[in-house]
Amino acid sequence: MTQTFTEMWKDLAPLGRNPRTHGYRRYAWTPADRDCRAWFQAQAHTRGLRYEADRNGNQWAWLGDPADGDAVVTGSHLDSVPDGGAFDGPLGVVSAFAALDALRARRARPVRPVGIVNFGDEEGARFGLACVGSRLTTGQLTRERAHALTDADGVTLARAMEHAGQDPETLGPDPERLARIGAFVELHVEQGRALDLSGDPVGIASAIWPHGRWRFDFAGEANHAGTTRLADRRDPMLSYAETVLAARRAADLTGALATFGKVAVEPNGVNAIPSLVRGWLDSRAADQETLDTVVTAIEEAARERAERDGVDLTVVRESFTPVVEFEHALRDELNRLLGGAAPVLGTGAGHDAGILSGAVPTAMLFVRNPTGVSHSPAESATEDDCLAGVDALTDVLEGLACR
Amino acid sequence: MTQTFTEMWKDLAPLGRNPRTHGYRRYAWTPADRDCRAWFQAQAHTRGLRYEADRNGNQWAWLGDPADGDAVVTGSHLDSVPDGGAFDGPLGVVSAFAALDALRARRARPVRPVGIVNFGDEEGARFGLACVGSRLTTGQLTRERAHALTDADGVTLARAMEHAGQDPETLGPDPERLARIGAFVELHVEQGRALDLSGDPVGIASAIWPHGRWRFDFAGEANHAGTTRLADRRDPMLSYAETVLAARRAADLTGALATFGKVAVEPNGVNAIPSLVRGWLDSRAADQETLDTVVTAIEEAARERAERDGVDLTVVRESFTPVVEFEHALRDELNRLLGGAAPVLGTGAGHDAGILSGAVPTAMLFVRNPTGVSHSPAESATEDDCLAGVDALTDVLEGLACR
Repeated sequence: MTQTFTEMWKDLAPLGRNPRTHGYRRYAWTPADRDCRAWFQAQAHTRGLRYEADRNGNQWAWLGDPADGDAVVTGSHLDSVPDGGAFDGPLGVVSAFAALDALRARRARPVRPVGIVNFGDEEGARFGLACVGSRLTTGQLTRERAHALTDADGVTLARAMEHAGQDPETLGPDPERLARIGAFVELHVEQGRALDLSGDPVGIASAIWPHGRWRFDFAGEANHAGTTRLADRRDPMLSYAETVLAARRAADLTGALATFGKVAVEPNGVNAIPSLVRGWLDSRAADQETLDTVVTAIEEAARERAERDGVDLTVVRESFTPVVEFEHALRDELNRLLGGAAPVLGTGAGHDAGILSGAVPTAMLFVRNPTGVSHSPAESATEDDCLAGVDALTDVLEGLACR
Repeated sequence: MTQTFTEMWKDLAPLGRNPRTHGYRRYAWTPADRDCRAWFQAQAHTRGLRYEADRNGNQWAWLGDPADGDAVVTGSHLDSVPDGGAFDGPLGVVSAFAALDALRARRARPVRPVGIVNFGDEEGARFGLACVGSRLTTGQLTRERAHALTDADGVTLARAMEHAGQDPETLGPDPERLARIGAFVELHVEQGRALDLSGDPVGIASAIWPHGRWRFDFAGEANHAGTTRLADRRDPMLSYAETVLAARRAADLTGALATFGKVAVEPNGVNAIPSLVRGWLDSRAADQETLDTVVTAIEEAARERAERDGVDLTVVRESFTPVVEFEHALRDELNRLLGGAAPVLGTGAGHDAGILSGAVPTAMLFVRNPTGVSHSPAESATEDDCLAGVDALTDVLEGLACR
């Protein structure tokens, strides 16, 4: 007996939820991640779908034989940011299963294999790099670099995978798998308010803004906060604070986004001037030139202040994704299948769809988010809009795979 | 066979040292703390001193019978700040044992009991409140409040004590013990550069500045850093950053000290606007009026910016110690015993001596710190200066206890 959308949603809801914050902590290769994977496998099983876990930590469920090629694949991810919401990722996976059920209920006959995917470690919450599963598959992340990724406790990705029973030695590009996919459509909750402002339950993605993560290491000198004269200090917290404000100013001036949301301080004692303040900048813009302008302005402001504070600054670009324009033909086809009424919008968020778009014709559907809140327990979408998303995805699957 | 100063120093050096940072992590009621306590007890034992662990986590070693009263006590603490140096605390305890040995070598005959003390949890690194052992003894910290203190993992002080084999139910004021002490002299490494600038190996304390810790909780709204428009954000990192810079400006204007050295962010994800940024202010000034002016100015700047950012601000004073003027008669006596040449200086650092000074005539000796660096692995003092400190402390003990 297969579950409805609402039943699947209810089943998945408690997994990896923190009881204090009500946010999700579904990090790669943790027990919460294992529970989500088991849920995926069970859903594939009850539908009689062919189940596969690939070498790179992604899960697949197939209707038809993927070896036939030109498959239509949909899905998203089940992992979360720290204290993330319920929708970012899981909505795309649950909607995929529900759309497959609706396709069968319509007695539609697929002439192409239809796949559902759960990409591993999309958020990068644990090892600091986003879209690990899709990057490995496309070859954008090498095995060597993947093995070297470490979490906050110094555990390597390789060790974490081993611990979870996954062989880290077989990580790497999977061109055969990609070659069998004719189209990938990812459904995702919108992470802004564009659909809310336009009054539409479902939209289609045009492009993903170029975006990246930069680590700013401000190294000063630890000292006693109660006895060290201001003139004798090399306090990196000051340089960090100035940089946070400079980032907001630069984003404001250019219409870009720039955020410091994560910081690590050593030794992090109330009465100790820090020896090190490490801040992570997330920045995105509609085009590459604007993004370059913003990041350069922030780095310059940081260097200027660090010099004044006697602090050493190192800036490392930890990840970067250039602009992704989704394939126009597929995007236009989706628009036609949805009756031509769905708005087409850009987004600042990265997705596995963005990673895959270099290798496979790729598109995205967005479901309205009434507050625009995302990466937070307050993230939401109405049940009506979620079901409208399932309908739209069903139409897309039927249109692409069944004729 | 009793150890020399240098041998004791070498023995103590590896305990609780972090191999990566080379800093000390000797936090209350941890295995590192237990090792330090065992070291103290062993030193008392090899010298044939009467050993006591009191109800409040302090250790005592006695030459003579403390019940005789009017005792002369010296000592300090063995715990550390996060990644602290080797000298802050331990120098006073090791020097106390060495001075006692020197007293015996001089064949001086004490006519008053002489005690050596290791006060528990002076730095407050684990439970957030400094001088827990001495505050409990004097009644400045109640058992109820002590029981409620928790560490970063949510472990209460009571539970941590139990786990270390210490009964938390008997915590509380110990007036009988205090009544038997006629004078307390704490030797401590200087935490500034006053002695280095004056060219003296040893100095005497005049006063401890009033000082306190304030927690600033900036509560905003977690959201996706890549998709949330700047206008829709309630980003508490911005309010925090402005407050860090305002603290430095206010301190600069008034000659006070104000430092944000510790911060905690939720959810602390690279691509998440924080829901909460919690920063701790440490502030100190030569007098109460200046301290009030500084803290008020910082709080006002914080409120103004928080309002602009749509962020809620709560400020909690977590601890406060008013100005401590050390007893003038004892200070003058120390000055006389050291030949009248030792400089007399104030300090911004809190000490158990400051806590005890309300109940017992109290004084402090400082040993030169060539860089002024403290609360850092780079904290230092030359061996010559340390031995000069032991000589000075021996002169003081002989002068106070032996005639």
